[in-house]
Amino acid sequence: MTLPTKGRFITVEGTEGVGKSTNIDFIRELLNSANIPHIVSREPGGTPLAEEIRNVLVVPREEKMCELSELLLVFAARAQHLDQLIRPALARGEWVLCDRFTDATFAYQGGGRGLSAELIASLQTMVQGDLRPDCTLLLDAPVDVGMSRAGARGALDRFEREKLAFFEKVRAAYLAQVAAEPTRFKVVNASADLGSVQSEIAAALAAQIAAYQAAMHV
Amino acid sequence: MTLPTKGRFITVEGTEGVGKSTNIDFIRELLNSANIPHIVSREPGGTPLAEEIRNVLVVPREEKMCELSELLLVFAARAQHLDQLIRPALARGEWVLCDRFTDATFAYQGGGRGLSAELIASLQTMVQGDLRPDCTLLLDAPVDVGMSRAGARGALDRFEREKLAFFEKVRAAYLAQVAAEPTRFKVVNASADLGSVQSEIAAALAAQIAAYQAAMHV
Repeated sequence: MTLPTKGRFITVEGTEGVGKSTNIDFIRELLNSANIPHIVSREPGGTPLAEEIRNVLVVPREEKMCELSELLLVFAARAQHLDQLIRPALARGEWVLCDRFTDATFAYQGGGRGLSAELIASLQTMVQGDLRPDCTLLLDAPVDVGMSRAGARGALDRFEREKLAFFEKVRAAYLAQVAAEPTRFKVVNASADLGSVQSEIAAALAAQIAAYQAAMHV
Repeated sequence: MTLPTKGRFITVEGTEGVGKSTNIDFIRELLNSANIPHIVSREPGGTPLAEEIRNVLVVPREEKMCELSELLLVFAARAQHLDQLIRPALARGEWVLCDRFTDATFAYQGGGRGLSAELIASLQTMVQGDLRPDCTLLLDAPVDVGMSRAGARGALDRFEREKLAFFEKVRAAYLAQVAAEPTRFKVVNASADLGSVQSEIAAALAAQIAAYQAAMHV
């Protein structure tokens, strides 16, 4: 069934331990309560083939993956995800709620690993054309807060300090993207208590949910 | 050990059934006889990780791989192959003999599947910079000759006719690349008997082998 209006594309971003999974479940419930047809997906992944590519990305191996190969694999998975799942769902009028998207590539492969934003932007154009999320919720918290939630407690060893420095760069890259596209992003203070976080998220989506429901009842 | 001169990068291209494997073995023997240190590799593939990506490309599955995802996977494997194997070998002074490279991407994903040459060229620049093969041997034969060698004999069914039309486009794209870069390519008539084919190949490489040996003995 094709619905009378195009779906909305909502992405959730953030570094480790900021509560993406919990809050994606919360948004799913918001959409269910509003009777909005939707799918929930994630990147890298989202289709069986894109999940195969995710597996190549995450499985440990002796051979070091070069940064450019990693970037191209991320976009190969994304091209498939867009072609098979995201674009068809939006065209049918369904909402797509996605755990990470291209902002994560700018943050992790760009800010974290140091690949140039121009390089990532050229692949973004190649793979997405002008498709961008309608709304991106960035769950933001100081990196040490996220890391301690994610399990690292007490004094940091060398590996953890390296991780901390890496995630600082990732977080800084996310915040730079917010500065460049303040309208699309909603920054949520993920250090706050869960009730406050979810109130912020509900407020951020309220206008879009209302607009969609109005379009559905024309 | 680093040799006193940079290695040569030789690629072998052609459609199905033109005798690439046989003639790569022949070139390997030529290089052995000339005491030229070399590696033999293939694309997509050439490192354990790049072979994992090749496996994603070739394994049959229900989900249709979109053309852009295929193209990005090919270049992801190539980036890794260049980083881990090809560039280090050339820098050490070894020759690299490779069964297919980017010309095959222009021929198969471009000519065959219809992706634009500009798109492929932009990924080529992203992944290779200005690295190109020093010499590319294109084993060329009419498509029906190659297909009958590869096993399709007698009257063609619908699938074989589709394959024939596809390989005609691939061959035409290869020949268009030869027209664009006549110096780099050596077109070998692969319909001829094996002795003639191998004489052509040996003649094509003779000058480069002699130049390399002269540089080694300075």
